[in-house]
Amino acid sequence: MTASLTRRLGYVFENPKLLETALTHRSVTKHNNERLEFLGDSILNCIVSDLLYRARPQATEGDLSRLRARLVREETLADVARTLVLEDHLRLGEGELKSGGFRRASILADAFEAILAAVYLDGGFAAAFKVVEQLFTPLLNQLPAAEALKDAKTRLQEWLQARGEPLPSYELLEQSGPDHQRKFRVSCVAGQGKKAWQATGTSRRRAEQAAAEAALTALSQSGTS
Amino acid sequence: MTASLTRRLGYVFENPKLLETALTHRSVTKHNNERLEFLGDSILNCIVSDLLYRARPQATEGDLSRLRARLVREETLADVARTLVLEDHLRLGEGELKSGGFRRASILADAFEAILAAVYLDGGFAAAFKVVEQLFTPLLNQLPAAEALKDAKTRLQEWLQARGEPLPSYELLEQSGPDHQRKFRVSCVAGQGKKAWQATGTSRRRAEQAAAEAALTALSQSGTS
Repeated sequence: MTASLTRRLGYVFENPKLLETALTHRSVTKHNNERLEFLGDSILNCIVSDLLYRARPQATEGDLSRLRARLVREETLADVARTLVLEDHLRLGEGELKSGGFRRASILADAFEAILAAVYLDGGFAAAFKVVEQLFTPLLNQLPAAEALKDAKTRLQEWLQARGEPLPSYELLEQSGPDHQRKFRVSCVAGQGKKAWQATGTSRRRAEQAAAEAALTALSQSGTS
Repeated sequence: MTASLTRRLGYVFENPKLLETALTHRSVTKHNNERLEFLGDSILNCIVSDLLYRARPQATEGDLSRLRARLVREETLADVARTLVLEDHLRLGEGELKSGGFRRASILADAFEAILAAVYLDGGFAAAFKVVEQLFTPLLNQLPAAEALKDAKTRLQEWLQARGEPLPSYELLEQSGPDHQRKFRVSCVAGQGKKAWQATGTSRRRAEQAAAEAALTALSQSGTS
């Protein structure tokens, strides 16, 4: 039954019980994949870090962190799990089955990490490395430039610093709406002209990012600040 | 010069340049240990996770996370670095030298992680595993019970849930002081008697933790809620 999975994974288990546990969601039994997920998460991080370290010899540690975050986020791991067709092999409790748990990104991502730990415990680090390398190298090659992964506030700050200009300042102008649907309006003052750009968002942080993005777009298009 | 270090580390480098880079702080040159630190951090996390996974077969993934956080925090890593007498081998820029950078916990911890990456790149995962195992097994054996590492709010909540009682509620009573020295006073209402415990702290979170601790102490001593 798991033959197709081990084929896609490129790894055959010495002890298939480990794979079974890795595929077992906590809704089924106490003997589930949560501990394996804990271990697998750290193994994945380590191997992806290694792949990035070698693939990007010029990247700073900040760039490497941002690139890694992109590769190990839940969404990416769920995609990887789908290429392994994990949803056909998951063992879920009745409630989760009915509510379509086998499609949920978090369940798929957790199971993938658990499987990776199972490979590691069964075949050692080299076996886990091979699995990750095979699955993630295509993703690594599609990563955007590290620069593009920086958030807008960081990019705006670096843009201004490179031109010897003062740091931007942010101000909260208004909060509105009920507690669970709060809206924040902020302004970002930047550039030598001290122009202000306003934006709104569902958190102060989001609003500031949007305002920084607007400022950066305008400043870099005008060519001067 | 680094002979005493490799002896304490229990690892001899094939390529000593790697160790040199690992010992070089960013205050010296662009070719410093920051990229190695990025890699070493993830290697350490992975190996410590493995050691904990095997040493604590009954621990939940939440317990494992808390135990790991204790082992890989800056303070612990700086202590490990001091057992290796890393401060005698660090290469720091003049400014850092004068201000005693070789004693700073963050610099020591970062250098230790970088060294671990150097071992990994030089001798592979097994070599890094041996180094970590040797240095961390004594710390692992001294870890408190996972329960003791839970924060007070979590312990209070679990204590109440185990007794079928409603969740505690927290209320911010007062903020005072200037922005950089703010004080928060909160109350925690818990137990069937709906008693309230007050506490203050330099952040809302800290004040809530202190109030929860007070509530838990009182409730568990009285034996009833």
